[in-house]
Amino acid sequence: MANATNEDIFKQFKEHSVAEFFKKNRQMLGFSGKVRSMTIIIHEFVTNSLDAAEEAGILPEIFVQIEVLDKEGDHYRITVKDNGPGIPKTHLGKALGQMLAGTKFHRYVQQRGQQGIGAAACTMFSYLTTGQKTRAVSCHKGKKLTADISLDFKTNRPIVEEVSEEDTTESGLMVVAEYKDVRYERSDYGVYEYLRRTALANPHTSITLVEPNTEKSVFPRSVEMNPKRPTEIKPHPLGISTHDLLEFAKHNSEYKKLSLFLINTFSRFSSGKVDELRAILPGFNFDKNPSDLEWHEAEQLVKAFAGVKWIAPATDSLVPIGKDQVELSFKNIFNPELVIITERPPKVYRGGIPFMVEAGIAYGGGLINAQKKGDVMRFANRVPLLFDSSGCAITNMIKSIDWKRYDVRAFEEEPIAVLVNVVSVHVPYTSAGKQAISSEEDLEIEIKNAVMEAARSIQRYLSGKRKASDLANKKKLVSRYVSQLSGDLSSLSGEKREKIEKTLRYIIETKYSSEMGVDDEEAKDIKAAEKAKKEEAESEGDSDE
Amino acid sequence: MANATNEDIFKQFKEHSVAEFFKKNRQMLGFSGKVRSMTIIIHEFVTNSLDAAEEAGILPEIFVQIEVLDKEGDHYRITVKDNGPGIPKTHLGKALGQMLAGTKFHRYVQQRGQQGIGAAACTMFSYLTTGQKTRAVSCHKGKKLTADISLDFKTNRPIVEEVSEEDTTESGLMVVAEYKDVRYERSDYGVYEYLRRTALANPHTSITLVEPNTEKSVFPRSVEMNPKRPTEIKPHPLGISTHDLLEFAKHNSEYKKLSLFLINTFSRFSSGKVDELRAILPGFNFDKNPSDLEWHEAEQLVKAFAGVKWIAPATDSLVPIGKDQVELSFKNIFNPELVIITERPPKVYRGGIPFMVEAGIAYGGGLINAQKKGDVMRFANRVPLLFDSSGCAITNMIKSIDWKRYDVRAFEEEPIAVLVNVVSVHVPYTSAGKQAISSEEDLEIEIKNAVMEAARSIQRYLSGKRKASDLANKKKLVSRYVSQLSGDLSSLSGEKREKIEKTLRYIIETKYSSEMGVDDEEAKDIKAAEKAKKEEAESEGDSDE
Repeated sequence: MANATNEDIFKQFKEHSVAEFFKKNRQMLGFSGKVRSMTIIIHEFVTNSLDAAEEAGILPEIFVQIEVLDKEGDHYRITVKDNGPGIPKTHLGKALGQMLAGTKFHRYVQQRGQQGIGAAACTMFSYLTTGQKTRAVSCHKGKKLTADISLDFKTNRPIVEEVSEEDTTESGLMVVAEYKDVRYERSDYGVYEYLRRTALANPHTSITLVEPNTEKSVFPRSVEMNPKRPTEIKPHPLGISTHDLLEFAKHNSEYKKLSLFLINTFSRFSSGKVDELRAILPGFNFDKNPSDLEWHEAEQLVKAFAGVKWIAPATDSLVPIGKDQVELSFKNIFNPELVIITERPPKVYRGGIPFMVEAGIAYGGGLINAQKKGDVMRFANRVPLLFDSSGCAITNMIKSIDWKRYDVRAFEEEPIAVLVNVVSVHVPYTSAGKQAISSEEDLEIEIKNAVMEAARSIQRYLSGKRKASDLANKKKLVSRYVSQLSGDLSSLSGEKREKIEKTLRYIIETKYSSEMGVDDEEAKDIKAAEKAKKEEAESEGDSDE
Repeated sequence: MANATNEDIFKQFKEHSVAEFFKKNRQMLGFSGKVRSMTIIIHEFVTNSLDAAEEAGILPEIFVQIEVLDKEGDHYRITVKDNGPGIPKTHLGKALGQMLAGTKFHRYVQQRGQQGIGAAACTMFSYLTTGQKTRAVSCHKGKKLTADISLDFKTNRPIVEEVSEEDTTESGLMVVAEYKDVRYERSDYGVYEYLRRTALANPHTSITLVEPNTEKSVFPRSVEMNPKRPTEIKPHPLGISTHDLLEFAKHNSEYKKLSLFLINTFSRFSSGKVDELRAILPGFNFDKNPSDLEWHEAEQLVKAFAGVKWIAPATDSLVPIGKDQVELSFKNIFNPELVIITERPPKVYRGGIPFMVEAGIAYGGGLINAQKKGDVMRFANRVPLLFDSSGCAITNMIKSIDWKRYDVRAFEEEPIAVLVNVVSVHVPYTSAGKQAISSEEDLEIEIKNAVMEAARSIQRYLSGKRKASDLANKKKLVSRYVSQLSGDLSSLSGEKREKIEKTLRYIIETKYSSEMGVDDEEAKDIKAAEKAKKEEAESEGDSDE
């Protein structure tokens, strides 16, 4: 919208493609800063490779090579190769050279990628910084297709130059491209750390990295099985918007009756639920054709949905990293004194989008040696989030917790690490760069609750530990007098000194039970509490919200 | 990019419009949270209105009304009316109902809006939450056109229903639309605060707000003249990318010689500069046709540009709020003890984009009463940024300063407020919601330098103040003994007590000069230093970087 005194300004009125928009605003894709830009490139290709292999039921095997091409260290070649199913000839160009095109954007299924922008953004960034096309080698169904891909900014269309096509027995996609305005370094924000965290959250994956100095690191597979496939689901009625409901109704051609349309379009919608709605909305015509649904009717329905008790989204639509694996990862990284992981049932946010939050807290031990204090490790659908920490709902929720209540005096000064993985069929990122989660209220509450739940167990441990240490101190103090007192009492009473001393020591032992004993008890308590919580969670998962 | 074992997954391959993308990711446009969503709507319309009026040379007069339509307080009608030039019939639909369309995206001129997304995003948000169209009344060149506007998500095209067209003598645009999922409240993140800050940074604007409780607030115009119009400029050669240079060369049809193309396409490019480049690149053919320029040649040129001394971008392409106005605004809001404003010459970041940073620091006084501590007020092209503070380069740079060096013990605990306004022909926002500035290195350095420059003056004042207060304490201490000592000395020497006392008091007065005196001197020093800086800045602005 731009007004002007004369038509001149409107001669300047133009329409732009999404590729032009992101070309000018590449920081919105995460391309700002050299180290970050390089990590973003790896991130985009690796997440796509993992999604593709898993979807095809293949155990992912990923090879990443980074080479420096000039003396100044500003010009790189990046190779990412996977063992996935490859991409057919018909789609290769669009998959790598067109923004907002792909198989992910519109599906209700938990995936790492979800926008259909990432790969094309890398093709763009390579072209913008080096003028080079991106070489793609796709081995798909017996054919090995080699092509050079770039994109037409004005139209957001891919430009594909086929190089060769031959027979192959292999399978997978390899992308090779040159980049400038990037830098390789082994920092907390670099590729090495990104891949290390990816490996931790994806133990079924084997990742090989060859760094510019030709050093080769292998993050080996530790689980010989892909995680359970998240099922593609229907949207959940809870929280769906009027507009969504109307869109679904408009694009439905199968069902001629509103009741059938509702039952078949949304998850957890039974004929029993339709009856409940009839009771809430007397006179509402559930037999009408969905395509005749009007805004005010859809609005009535959406309001009524909120008055019905719904079963939570099916748990199998969301696949967390898993308690054991998070615990193992934590132990591998930090070898902490204590690890607490929470598992909580799925919830729903805006538009019927199911999500769940895994949280873990590690305390003490190796964290002290590593001088890690108040460390936050963020993941979304198993993808490590390394950037934009301060603008992320995970960080903000962790910081908003009153840690003193949990005997953690100051979060940023204690040897504590918090891991949060947000799992969802649609993660609400703050920008197309997908590095921070937006402040959606439902999500924030659940993140906070998950971390606080873990914090309560930490508190039991910390306060138990403190109690035990207080007791041990008292015992030590009292014990000092035993020898003297036994002697004195023996002289006074004539009883044998040894007997008196033994009795006194027994009294002390029973009164001030050992540190070990308290810890054992504490551990038992924690385990019992966790078991109870788990059962509760399971029953919640299958019943109403 | 998505692979799969079979073609099935690729049957799901789809192309999406930018409207669908932002519909699903409305948080990227700033629509997350009810209060924020309402402020974002006002922000989009008001920035457009200000840009339009100023461009047409009209003193902006903006009327904003917010009405609640239901008892639950969840359904609102928002009206924004300006006195700008209106929008012609040919462009009204696209301006309000098509994303990435407009007059702003491709121009090198300082504006508030710059993406061509905002107004269409509001139309979308209204439709998504209420199913209603957005009513636009455009008075343009004697015609008053009333139309209802919505958008087709699949195609990102506007849907326009003309309601009426009649003659008028008025001029301006009025937009009326309904919204749900918004909330009005008078918080730091609400519409009132947004408009208050807008008024502070735009004293030539008159803004009227009618709140839901029908309370009417007027932020009156305090300057009866529009700010100088920022001139539309050519891109600056410094920092331009190879790709940009080639794009310009490809789209140039006027000049057949590379040298002439360079001189006429970029700012500060004289034939003298071409000669300098010839010296750096012996043998390079500056007579060739620009359309024949190849990547490696363009790359050579861009490298050579960095070796030439360029005059900074023309100052008139950037119009800051201005030192006096920032000072006045600060005084109006906080009535602080001290205000320091820095004015610095324009600089250039990525792609030859000129920018400048205004920074101000207010200390003490009213800030103490208002209990404001470590307050950060962010602006970009005079637009207040209320959200995403923690992810913004301004906040991060302010927090990264070692404030102790400036006698500010802890930034967040002192009565200090920092205002930063980033002025540019293209502000690199972190997302389409335009609430935070991305971490561009050149920008960050300049923000930090600007604030540190102001901090140095604050330090002089604070340390002077501390010195004065120390002196005053010593004086007080010593003075206590004067009376006793004068009596004793008088008895011993026979001199009159009054005379001795007077002499002693004179000695004390000269040795421990008064607090007032120090402050005056200090103030003079600060003024002199600022004058010197200003002169330096002015000369820098016209000479080489």
